[in-house]
Amino acid sequence: MSAPKITDVVVTPVAVLDPPLLNASGVHEPYQLRAVIELRTDEGVVGLSEAYGDTPTLNNLRKAAPSLIGLSVFDLNGLTQRVAVTLAGVTPSTLTDLVGKASLQKTVGQAIGAFEVACFDAQGKATGLRVCDLLGGAVREEVPYSAYLFYRWAKHPAGATGPDYEDDDWGDALDPAGIVAQAQRMVDTYGFASLKLKGGVFDPDAEADAIEALRAAFPGHPLRLDPNANWSVETSKRIAKRLEGLLEYLEDPTGGNPGMGEVARATSLPLATNMCVTAFQEIPEAVALDSVRVVLSDHHYWGGFRASLKLAGICETFGWGLSMHSNTHLGISLAAMTHLAAAVPNLNYACDTHSPWTREDVVRPGALEWNTATGSLLVPGGAGLGVELDYDALERLNRQYEDCGVRVRDDASAMRLAEPGWELRTPRF
Amino acid sequence: MSAPKITDVVVTPVAVLDPPLLNASGVHEPYQLRAVIELRTDEGVVGLSEAYGDTPTLNNLRKAAPSLIGLSVFDLNGLTQRVAVTLAGVTPSTLTDLVGKASLQKTVGQAIGAFEVACFDAQGKATGLRVCDLLGGAVREEVPYSAYLFYRWAKHPAGATGPDYEDDDWGDALDPAGIVAQAQRMVDTYGFASLKLKGGVFDPDAEADAIEALRAAFPGHPLRLDPNANWSVETSKRIAKRLEGLLEYLEDPTGGNPGMGEVARATSLPLATNMCVTAFQEIPEAVALDSVRVVLSDHHYWGGFRASLKLAGICETFGWGLSMHSNTHLGISLAAMTHLAAAVPNLNYACDTHSPWTREDVVRPGALEWNTATGSLLVPGGAGLGVELDYDALERLNRQYEDCGVRVRDDASAMRLAEPGWELRTPRF
Ligand SMILES: [Mg+2]
Ligand SMILES: [Mg+2]
Repeated sequence: MSAPKITDVVVTPVAVLDPPLLNASGVHEPYQLRAVIELRTDEGVVGLSEAYGDTPTLNNLRKAAPSLIGLSVFDLNGLTQRVAVTLAGVTPSTLTDLVGKASLQKTVGQAIGAFEVACFDAQGKATGLRVCDLLGGAVREEVPYSAYLFYRWAKHPAGATGPDYEDDDWGDALDPAGIVAQAQRMVDTYGFASLKLKGGVFDPDAEADAIEALRAAFPGHPLRLDPNANWSVETSKRIAKRLEGLLEYLEDPTGGNPGMGEVARATSLPLATNMCVTAFQEIPEAVALDSVRVVLSDHHYWGGFRASLKLAGICETFGWGLSMHSNTHLGISLAAMTHLAAAVPNLNYACDTHSPWTREDVVRPGALEWNTATGSLLVPGGAGLGVELDYDALERLNRQYEDCGVRVRDDASAMRLAEPGWELRTPRF
Repeated sequence: MSAPKITDVVVTPVAVLDPPLLNASGVHEPYQLRAVIELRTDEGVVGLSEAYGDTPTLNNLRKAAPSLIGLSVFDLNGLTQRVAVTLAGVTPSTLTDLVGKASLQKTVGQAIGAFEVACFDAQGKATGLRVCDLLGGAVREEVPYSAYLFYRWAKHPAGATGPDYEDDDWGDALDPAGIVAQAQRMVDTYGFASLKLKGGVFDPDAEADAIEALRAAFPGHPLRLDPNANWSVETSKRIAKRLEGLLEYLEDPTGGNPGMGEVARATSLPLATNMCVTAFQEIPEAVALDSVRVVLSDHHYWGGFRASLKLAGICETFGWGLSMHSNTHLGISLAAMTHLAAAVPNLNYACDTHSPWTREDVVRPGALEWNTATGSLLVPGGAGLGVELDYDALERLNRQYEDCGVRVRDDASAMRLAEPGWELRTPRF
């Protein structure tokens, strides 16, 4: 075998239909953006990856792409260096505040991670090995995911969608009964064995009511609540007290390591985060303040698979639990998340996924198979990530991107279509 | 390519001639022990590695070996699990107190690391890639090493050697002039651009005199002093003050993170360690006490290449410098150290090596080439580690092992042959 060298980098933005999921920043728009990356090589193998599709990310990926020509897909340190040099002067960006503060390191890390996943896919295709085997071997052949429950409307607000938009059939979920019904459908369909509620939307006691309703309806399912730092320290302490014993973790009740540390000292609930520990630079403060017990990794913004393994090693060393975060994603990222999760021994929680909310994909069907008895995804069996691009779907979803007009994620503006005076305030409660 | 599976594990102890190098634990015996590991596979490729050769290590390697049969050489998580299960009940051991406290984790990690390096060598031979390429790619094609200076005698004490033992021609080095002469010969021969003095042997002020003599003779060479925790906190503070500005780091002046932290607060010299941070379990205490600025990695006891990358990630995250430790080793380990060092971007010091003191080897000549202008070793170019076993040499050095009678490292008993009343005391000064 000779190491494939990159000859071309193709970045294709796509837009996929998305339901009106509510969160601390507003509501999901009708279209979510993703970027599909194809690394073409001189050996003929093509490495696939999936990244954020907002304009700043696309610009960064395209700015860095030419520097990768000639690089071996095994030279991940070279990839890091080239991307870091190319993007040294860019404006820090992040998809949304829901994944923490923007920083140059994270912005560069996003691009590195996007290309690195494609390099691993190409490595796998060149060697005949699965990505999880290249990451040290699968410690599990099925990766448990959690049901990601959202408060939501049945339909997007008037004026949000184009003429071709079709609403899904989930209906609304705006109170404990609605959340329990949503959970029931997800558990029935996928078999999820743990449940996560995206909070930070309604009055915190109403969200605690929903957790209590979930506990009553699903007595054996571990539960999580994620208010996305939309609570004050005082509110966090009060609601944490109310939910003692009911959650496997409380995710980002409040913002920043000092506040999280204060809440941590007031509750026995483990605090988890994908907002105050989102980059290596934030770890020393979290260690010093003892502000979190669980970190949600995400290869998209931590900087790829190797960065995620580095994070996993730090979690193991400092006695932190490790879980996995999700933004809206397609099948390439689901495969990537699953290979990574399969290869990390100390990933000790079911991973988040937006899969149930996504009705469109760019990968050919068949590679991603759920074990609906356990809510687990089987690790894809083929070489590399084990998924193939559906070029017809890619073209259609790229056209949808061109037509929909959405270019950055903006949940707040979407919210204002329904509630004209709505303002982003953090913490709201 | 299909992934090679392990069919046989061969562990061969060898003994190699070693000069009487003085240290805090006594003096090197005339024979140092190493173990050569061959992982044979169903694809015909053989993975090589080198480990400690003391009896407890040999017992552990041989106890774990049968569990590896059938394992893919890519399944490093599987390797970790199998070795951990097999060695779960063994007595913790460590080669010497000079690399910190014994613990079960370190004992298991030693065996994992020994086999993991051989797995990487086999991976490289199966794919045609160098080990450094499998570790993320070479960020440097030449790895700088430091001159490892020792106080030493010209000859071993009477009664220490067998009839065939031949002394080397380095003579003794027992004062500043002797150390400077030794350094000059090493720099002339290898081109080393930094100098490390093994201390903890003589009166600390005499060792500080030697550092000052080295500074005068080599004004441009970064200097290090390693008393192997043989100084009290008070002595460490006093000598650190005397050496302010003269060292790139002071290595393990005193023992334990609390004492090191106290010394650290009293000096501007960066403190380095391969004694108080030698396993992941010891890292949180070092972070909390801010006791070190530089950690010396060593794949032999940290648990292999992947564990070393994990350590490198932690050092980067917490702002620690990263250097590399050496025990007496042969060409397989030198190749392994070099591939690892080539692939770690934040390795920011020249690595230690005992190479100049070792006159025998188990690898065929030619693969390990020094750039004698810079004291760097060229990363071997062949597949895997890039070295080949010399089976005649292996047989001869195995016979030397059988004949020499040494079975564990015991520098203290060797010392007592010269000074009958000598006792190990820590700290001595
Ligand atoms: Mg979250
Ligand atoms: Mg040392």
